[in-house]
Amino acid sequence: MEFSSKLIEKAVNEMSQLPGIGKRTALRLVLHILKQPKEQAAFLAQALVTMREEIKYCNSCHNISDSEVCEICANEKRNHQIICVVEDIRDVMAIENTGQFRGIYHVLGGKISPIDGVGPSQLTINSLVEKVKLGQVSEIIFALSSTMEGDTTNFYIYKQIADLSIIVSTIARGIAVGDELEYADEVTLGRSILQRVPFEKSLKSN
Amino acid sequence: MEFSSKLIEKAVNEMSQLPGIGKRTALRLVLHILKQPKEQAAFLAQALVTMREEIKYCNSCHNISDSEVCEICANEKRNHQIICVVEDIRDVMAIENTGQFRGIYHVLGGKISPIDGVGPSQLTINSLVEKVKLGQVSEIIFALSSTMEGDTTNFYIYKQIADLSIIVSTIARGIAVGDELEYADEVTLGRSILQRVPFEKSLKSN
Repeated sequence: MEFSSKLIEKAVNEMSQLPGIGKRTALRLVLHILKQPKEQAAFLAQALVTMREEIKYCNSCHNISDSEVCEICANEKRNHQIICVVEDIRDVMAIENTGQFRGIYHVLGGKISPIDGVGPSQLTINSLVEKVKLGQVSEIIFALSSTMEGDTTNFYIYKQIADLSIIVSTIARGIAVGDELEYADEVTLGRSILQRVPFEKSLKSN
Repeated sequence: MEFSSKLIEKAVNEMSQLPGIGKRTALRLVLHILKQPKEQAAFLAQALVTMREEIKYCNSCHNISDSEVCEICANEKRNHQIICVVEDIRDVMAIENTGQFRGIYHVLGGKISPIDGVGPSQLTINSLVEKVKLGQVSEIIFALSSTMEGDTTNFYIYKQIADLSIIVSTIARGIAVGDELEYADEVTLGRSILQRVPFEKSLKSN
């Protein structure tokens, strides 16, 4: 792409560093910013820089938070004995949205992925294992995505806490509520049969 | 969406002002920025602000440019008698990419669109009409997209220059090179028959 302006070119190049934003999309976004008042560009820029500079992580669960301890970890009414292990803040938001979980979280910050150069030391796995060893935890629920990286990460953590007397569970995989069986993939359908639940139990879950 | 951090919330809100970026995508982009070094966020922010503050437009064709007169308008080798009327810099880039046009451009900055609150006075139509009236122009080529807004804009300009002795043309519409007829829409196929060109002429165009 040849630009008639170095300023545009630079802005497009920076924008297209973002995931899923190609040069064309970046140009569209940049041209939109050009049509807006100057303050708009300044607000966007300021919000990004301030966020990046001042962001904090909860001391306990490592979720993004504006205080030392996040609202969920600070909430006395939550069950601090049950810890749901997730990848990032999006998973916390998704599970919180269901209103079905009253425990607390542990945010790993990613999954073990040798291809992307992410090893266990870059994640908050040690902090989780320490927490479990203190003996205040009764159950760990793995809620990572069921990819090879997710399974690897689950297993890596599991090996370190398997000897401790806690329950280790993983969220149920199966056909999504409302989905038709004929369109489901074989692995999911197979798993939903193997891990079938008593009918009475399924009635209570809504 | 409920965020555990006001900083994240603000950044996501600003990002999701951009066209085609919803809250979910904005969150994905923002989390990506969080994982990058601080400088990366600063570079992006700076590029956007600098661009918005210092951007210039060519005095002649109104295209985005880093100088008073853009490279195309300043190029003596281009045919200044033929003006291609386009909507924005993307169209200039697309036509320049073909290497088939040796005239100059006139960038309108948009199309007349009452729904979006864009009237003729917000576009550079007057400047184009003035240019034509000076008598140095032999042909105007409309290259706006063939939507209702594009057609309206073409017609609005045409009315003001129809009395002047210049050629007014529009880019050819038809079946794209390489496309199969059976998948073409009726309007395009119909037009490509009505506006058929002599076979010998079609041989030269590549």
